[in-house]
Amino acid sequence: MNGFAQILDAARRTTPVVHSITNYVTVNDCANMILALGGSPIMADDPDEVEQIVAISAALVINIGTLNRHTVPAMLAAGKRANALGKPVVLDPVGAGASDLRNNALARLLGEVRFAAIKGNSAEIRFLAGSAVAARGVDAGDDTLVTEANLTASARMAAGLSARTGAVVVASGPIDLVACPTAVWAVRNGNARLTGITGAGCMAAAVTGCCLGAAPDKAPEACLCAMTIMGVAGEIAAAQSAPDKGGPGSFRMFLLDAVSSLSSPALAARARVEAVL
Amino acid sequence: MNGFAQILDAARRTTPVVHSITNYVTVNDCANMILALGGSPIMADDPDEVEQIVAISAALVINIGTLNRHTVPAMLAAGKRANALGKPVVLDPVGAGASDLRNNALARLLGEVRFAAIKGNSAEIRFLAGSAVAARGVDAGDDTLVTEANLTASARMAAGLSARTGAVVVASGPIDLVACPTAVWAVRNGNARLTGITGAGCMAAAVTGCCLGAAPDKAPEACLCAMTIMGVAGEIAAAQSAPDKGGPGSFRMFLLDAVSSLSSPALAARARVEAVL
Amino acid sequence: MNGFAQILDAARRTTPVVHSITNYVTVNDCANMILALGGSPIMADDPDEVEQIVAISAALVINIGTLNRHTVPAMLAAGKRANALGKPVVLDPVGAGASDLRNNALARLLGEVRFAAIKGNSAEIRFLAGSAVAARGVDAGDDTLVTEANLTASARMAAGLSARTGAVVVASGPIDLVACPTAVWAVRNGNARLTGITGAGCMAAAVTGCCLGAAPDKAPEACLCAMTIMGVAGEIAAAQSAPDKGGPGSFRMFLLDAVSSLSSPALAARARVEAVL
Repeated sequence: MNGFAQILDAARRTTPVVHSITNYVTVNDCANMILALGGSPIMADDPDEVEQIVAISAALVINIGTLNRHTVPAMLAAGKRANALGKPVVLDPVGAGASDLRNNALARLLGEVRFAAIKGNSAEIRFLAGSAVAARGVDAGDDTLVTEANLTASARMAAGLSARTGAVVVASGPIDLVACPTAVWAVRNGNARLTGITGAGCMAAAVTGCCLGAAPDKAPEACLCAMTIMGVAGEIAAAQSAPDKGGPGSFRMFLLDAVSSLSSPALAARARVEAVL
Repeated sequence: MNGFAQILDAARRTTPVVHSITNYVTVNDCANMILALGGSPIMADDPDEVEQIVAISAALVINIGTLNRHTVPAMLAAGKRANALGKPVVLDPVGAGASDLRNNALARLLGEVRFAAIKGNSAEIRFLAGSAVAARGVDAGDDTLVTEANLTASARMAAGLSARTGAVVVASGPIDLVACPTAVWAVRNGNARLTGITGAGCMAAAVTGCCLGAAPDKAPEACLCAMTIMGVAGEIAAAQSAPDKGGPGSFRMFLLDAVSSLSSPALAARARVEAVL
Repeated sequence: MNGFAQILDAARRTTPVVHSITNYVTVNDCANMILALGGSPIMADDPDEVEQIVAISAALVINIGTLNRHTVPAMLAAGKRANALGKPVVLDPVGAGASDLRNNALARLLGEVRFAAIKGNSAEIRFLAGSAVAARGVDAGDDTLVTEANLTASARMAAGLSARTGAVVVASGPIDLVACPTAVWAVRNGNARLTGITGAGCMAAAVTGCCLGAAPDKAPEACLCAMTIMGVAGEIAAAQSAPDKGGPGSFRMFLLDAVSSLSSPALAARARVEAVL
C-alpha cells in the first residue's frame, strides 16, 4: 500500500470540517489534533442540530466514551444523515463490552449506520467481532493485544468484521491492524507511552475522521495514514520527552507538536506498514 | 482609549468569581485562563442552580459551543438573573449560523438578556449583524475576516450591532474590533498561531468575563483589556514556541504562562490599539 | 503513620480501574493523573450503565463539580452499588454550600451512600461539618483555610465529620488534614501554585480513588498516600517551572510528569506527615 501519506497533504490543503460526537474526557485533545492536521473541528451532540452540523462537515466521528441516553439518538441521527449525504463516518466503540448501554448503542449504530471506518483498541474490536472478551474498563487487557504470535488470526478476525460491516476495521495497539475484507496491513509504528496518556485512541479516531474527510474515496489509505501519523508522532514525542526529560505531561504536548509539524515525506519515510493478509 | 490595561491589576486584586455556562471542548482552558488572570472560575449549567451561582459571581459568560436543549434554559435563567442583579454578561455565539438550534438560542438570548459584551469571531459577528454568512463550522472563513481593506465597513457593521444590542461588540481575528455604537477600536496584537489551537476565542470570552467582573462599569475598557491580553500573550507564546522549538502543544502551554505573568505596564506598552471610527 | 507510601507501589502493580462520575472541567487531568499512578480511568455517568461500570472497577469517585439533575441519580445508583459490592467510594463535594442543588445532592449522597473518603477543600469540609460558611464559588476563601493557628480546632472539626460519616475526611489546603474519628494527621507538603491551576483538588480526589482501589482496606493510609503524592508532586513541579521558567501551563505539565515518575521511597523521604490529634 503506497500513497497513503499524501492524504496528510490533502488534509492540510482542504481543511476538512470534522464533526465529532464524542466524550467529554478527551474532546479537547481530539479538537487540537484535528487542527494540528489542518482540519477544522466542530463538536455538537444535540439531536436537534446534529443533522445540520453534519451537512456542513466533511466527515463525522462517533465516539461512545461517555455516551448517555441523550447522545445516542444524536449519534444515530447524525450517522444516518451522513450516510444520506455520502459523508464518511468513523466509529470509536470505546468500552465495548463494558455495559449493556454501550453494547445496545453499538448494536443500533452498526445496524442503522454504514461506517467507513471502525477504530477501536484490540479488546473492543474483538468484542465487536464476536469474541467473548471480558471488558476491563476502557483500556485493553494484555490478553487481547495483537502480537506477532497471534498476528494472522487477529488479521482474519479484523477482516471478518470488515466484511460483515463494510467498514475498514482498525484495531490499535502495539501493532495496529488496518483491515479490509480481503487485505490487512500491520502498522508497527508507535510507542508504549501512547498508553500512558488518556485519549490516544480517541485522538486516533479523530485523526482518522480528518483523513477520511480529506480523502473520502480512499478509506483504507486514510486509515493507514491516520494510524501511521499517530504512531510516528508517538515515536517523535517519546524521543523528545525521554524519561530523564519528562513524563506523560510532556509527552502529550510533544505529541500534538509532532502531528502539527509532520510532513508527508517524513511520514512515508518512517511508516512501517506491511501487508499481513 | 487609555487606562484599559489597569483593569488587569483590578482583576488580580479583586479575584472576581466568573460563572461560565460553556462548552465541554475548551472549558478547562477557559478555567485556567480565568485563574491566570487572578479570577476564580466556576462552571455550572443546571437550570436548578445557575441563578444561585450567578448570585455569588462577579460576571457571567454564556458560550454556546456545545449547547443543548437542557443548557439553553439555564443560559436564559442565568442571564436574566445576572441582569436583575446588575452583573455583566458576556455572550460568545460559537457557531452562529451553523444550525437552527444555535440561531434560535441566540435569538432568545439576545431578546431576553441584556449583554455587556458580545464576543465572536468575524463570521459569527457578521451573522448576528444580519449578513448572509455561510457558516463554516466554528472557525471563520477567510472571506469573513476583518482586513485593512474592509476595516471601516467592518467597524460600521460592529457598531451597528452594538447600537442594536447595547453590548460592546468584539469581533476577533487577525485584526480585532471592539465596538461601541459611536466608537470602534482596532486591536492589532496577536499571532496567527492562536488559530492553531482550539479555544482561543472561548478563552478570549472567558478573559472578557473576568475583566468585566473586575470593572463592571467600564465595558469598553474591559473588552480592550481582554483582547490585548489575549493578543499580547499570543505574541509572547509564539516567540517562546518558535517553529523550530515547538508546535501548538507548546504554544498552548506558553499562552497560559504568558497571561499569568503579564503585568499591566507590559500590556500597556505592547498594546496596539487604534480608534477606527 | 508509616507505610502509606507503599500504596503507590500497589497502585503501579495492580492497575486499579477507577470509575469517576465527575465534572467536565477537569476530567481530562483526572484521567491522566490516574494513568500516571498506574491506574486505569473510566468515566461513565449515565444512570443506565453506572452500576455495571462500578462492578468492573476497583473504586468509585463522585465529584459534584458540574452536577446536574441527570447525573445525581447516577451518583446515587453507582454509590449504592459500590457499597453493595464492597468497593471504596470517594466524595469530592465541589462547591458545597454554593447552591441548593449541590447541598441537596450532598445530603442525599451522605444519607444513602457510605463513603470511604470525603475530600474537599477546607471551605467545603467546614460546610459539611456544619459550619456556617459563606461559599465563595469553588475556591476556598482565606478565612476558611487550615492554619497553624486553628490547627487543633480544625482537626477536631474534621474528626467530628469523620465520626459522623464513617469516612476518612480530607481537608485540602496549605496544610492538608487527613482525619479519622480518633486520629488526625497534618500533611505539610505542597506548593501555593497548586491553587493557580484548575483541578488540583479534583486530581487529589482522583488520586485518592486510585490509592483506595489499590488498598481498599487501608483508607487512612490511602488518603495520606494520595495527599502526599499531590503535595510532593506540586513541590517538584514548582521547582521545575520556577517563575523565571514558566507559569501555570508549565506547572500543570510538570505536575503530571512528577506524579508519573514518583517512587515510593522518594515519596516516603519527602512526605511531611505529623499526627495532630
